[in-house]
Amino acid sequence: MRTPNGKTKRKTEEEEVLREIRRAFPRSASGSLRVGMGDDAAVWKPTPGMETVLTTDWFLEGSHFLRDKHPADAVGWKCLARTVSDIAAMGGKPQCFLLSLALPKELTGQWLKQFLVGLRRASRALKCELGGGDTTRREEILINISVVGEVAAGKAALRSGARPGDLIYVSGVLGAAESGLRSLLESRGAVRAKGRALLRHLYPEPRLALGQWLVAKRLASSMMDLSDGLSTDLKRLCAASGVGAVIQAESLPVAQPGQTGIELALHGGDDYELLFTVIRKNSRFIPKEFRGVPLHLIGEVQKKKGIVLVLGNGEQGELQAGGWDPFRE
Amino acid sequence: MRTPNGKTKRKTEEEEVLREIRRAFPRSASGSLRVGMGDDAAVWKPTPGMETVLTTDWFLEGSHFLRDKHPADAVGWKCLARTVSDIAAMGGKPQCFLLSLALPKELTGQWLKQFLVGLRRASRALKCELGGGDTTRREEILINISVVGEVAAGKAALRSGARPGDLIYVSGVLGAAESGLRSLLESRGAVRAKGRALLRHLYPEPRLALGQWLVAKRLASSMMDLSDGLSTDLKRLCAASGVGAVIQAESLPVAQPGQTGIELALHGGDDYELLFTVIRKNSRFIPKEFRGVPLHLIGEVQKKKGIVLVLGNGEQGELQAGGWDPFRE
Repeated sequence: MRTPNGKTKRKTEEEEVLREIRRAFPRSASGSLRVGMGDDAAVWKPTPGMETVLTTDWFLEGSHFLRDKHPADAVGWKCLARTVSDIAAMGGKPQCFLLSLALPKELTGQWLKQFLVGLRRASRALKCELGGGDTTRREEILINISVVGEVAAGKAALRSGARPGDLIYVSGVLGAAESGLRSLLESRGAVRAKGRALLRHLYPEPRLALGQWLVAKRLASSMMDLSDGLSTDLKRLCAASGVGAVIQAESLPVAQPGQTGIELALHGGDDYELLFTVIRKNSRFIPKEFRGVPLHLIGEVQKKKGIVLVLGNGEQGELQAGGWDPFRE
Repeated sequence: MRTPNGKTKRKTEEEEVLREIRRAFPRSASGSLRVGMGDDAAVWKPTPGMETVLTTDWFLEGSHFLRDKHPADAVGWKCLARTVSDIAAMGGKPQCFLLSLALPKELTGQWLKQFLVGLRRASRALKCELGGGDTTRREEILINISVVGEVAAGKAALRSGARPGDLIYVSGVLGAAESGLRSLLESRGAVRAKGRALLRHLYPEPRLALGQWLVAKRLASSMMDLSDGLSTDLKRLCAASGVGAVIQAESLPVAQPGQTGIELALHGGDDYELLFTVIRKNSRFIPKEFRGVPLHLIGEVQKKKGIVLVLGNGEQGELQAGGWDPFRE
């Protein structure tokens, strides 16, 4: 209990953390963000004729990143970029985000500063403003990001629109981020980012322009982003659409040659590429590459449930979900 | 590494948790929620002429609740109710929410079911639909809730509008939730809810109708909700407005008599009552009670910074923030 006349001036550390965040994000509100940080809630003005796209993601020390392996600025970049990837998967445009951050006391100095450097860089690159959030103290670093985006009314690309006969595409290269993660885990001590695969793991780039283009041109009959690995995510897309799929192993855009490359492409997580389906007659409108990002035809939607993987030698079998499921032992 | 022909059918537990959540919230989308759970993101249609109000809150085992003390259904109720309280503080109307939930494997059964009972009850009572979320596995229960609400364009009540001479009001009774928390902590083992103070701690009710009424009538020059205790929160409101305040201890709506009652009213957290200021000539429009919730005049805004507490015997002193700051030892 404190006496109302108590003279002690306490330095409130929560205010310190908030001050640091404000220093990194000095504009408290601008454009359609009418009220930013510092009030009970943010106030944001939606664009007439647009629908609001809403998503949230955990990014937790130990589960999603390691304090002694992942540079703080990469944690800052990635926590926002991976959540914005869900907005890309709907064909939306990010607008603003809320940051929930729980930190140990000893990380409120240099670690927090570097984290905010990466977060601000992502915020600028992805044109997604900080609207507010919540901070608290905790022994482990806990991050939760919610992102608000916009998409033209009725136009959002869903997981449920794939139909038998549709062609299946992926953007970019698959398995690179997983390969980068492995090199990070095998390295000793903290790692400076180098190597393309490692960069893909540390600083993923959500495919916003591609998602928006596919939706604007009405080319994607269904779409989602690849966060937990193709074998897991394609299964989810097929379940949502009530269909199955046939995938050609040789068509997968692998990050490295051989069996390992295929395994990584099938089951590696954290790629944040787009997986989308296109009705056959529209496939001529899908370029080989969109603004420097290759687009690959990897298979076809079929009526029969389950996902069939066809190998180069013609052998085929049912592809099991082998991606990341946090509740699985 | 899994072989593409692997025959093992794994029961994916994340899907199990999601299924349980879907069972509790069977409508995946309705009304202005165009796309609900199960896609990369939710799609929500804003009401023309309204602005969007956005807020997020941590609710963490050990920091905000205790697994062996707080009933799971109260955790479910409170995590949503306390976040919606931020919407009430802006004068807004809740629309939908995102649930981020991290659970230990052993709680995915009965605990999760009871948690969802409380969460669904809050969702219905507060007219705030589940739009989506993120689930993962963790040794401790971690909850993060983001809520989307609406308020008429340009009408949101801010913390920054208090001016010298304005009168300061609070809704309800202060300190009851803190008193309930103490009785909970002193009790042995799990507690069944009884006693008014304990119910206030376990099942807080955000003052949505009051907040909306104050905003519709343009009566609140500034407003916020009381989550960390009056002494801490009033200091924040004064800082945002660039003013100070004088509070009469005898005017505080205390939950219990004597010095303890005043201390609890000043520093107790978790009340989720509204703190608001009214310009003097409008004070005649503030009723003694609004829909069963008492409204109390407790002091006045002044130009001089700092918060002065005037005791019953005329003694006065500066009120120090004594509420909850998670970063303070």
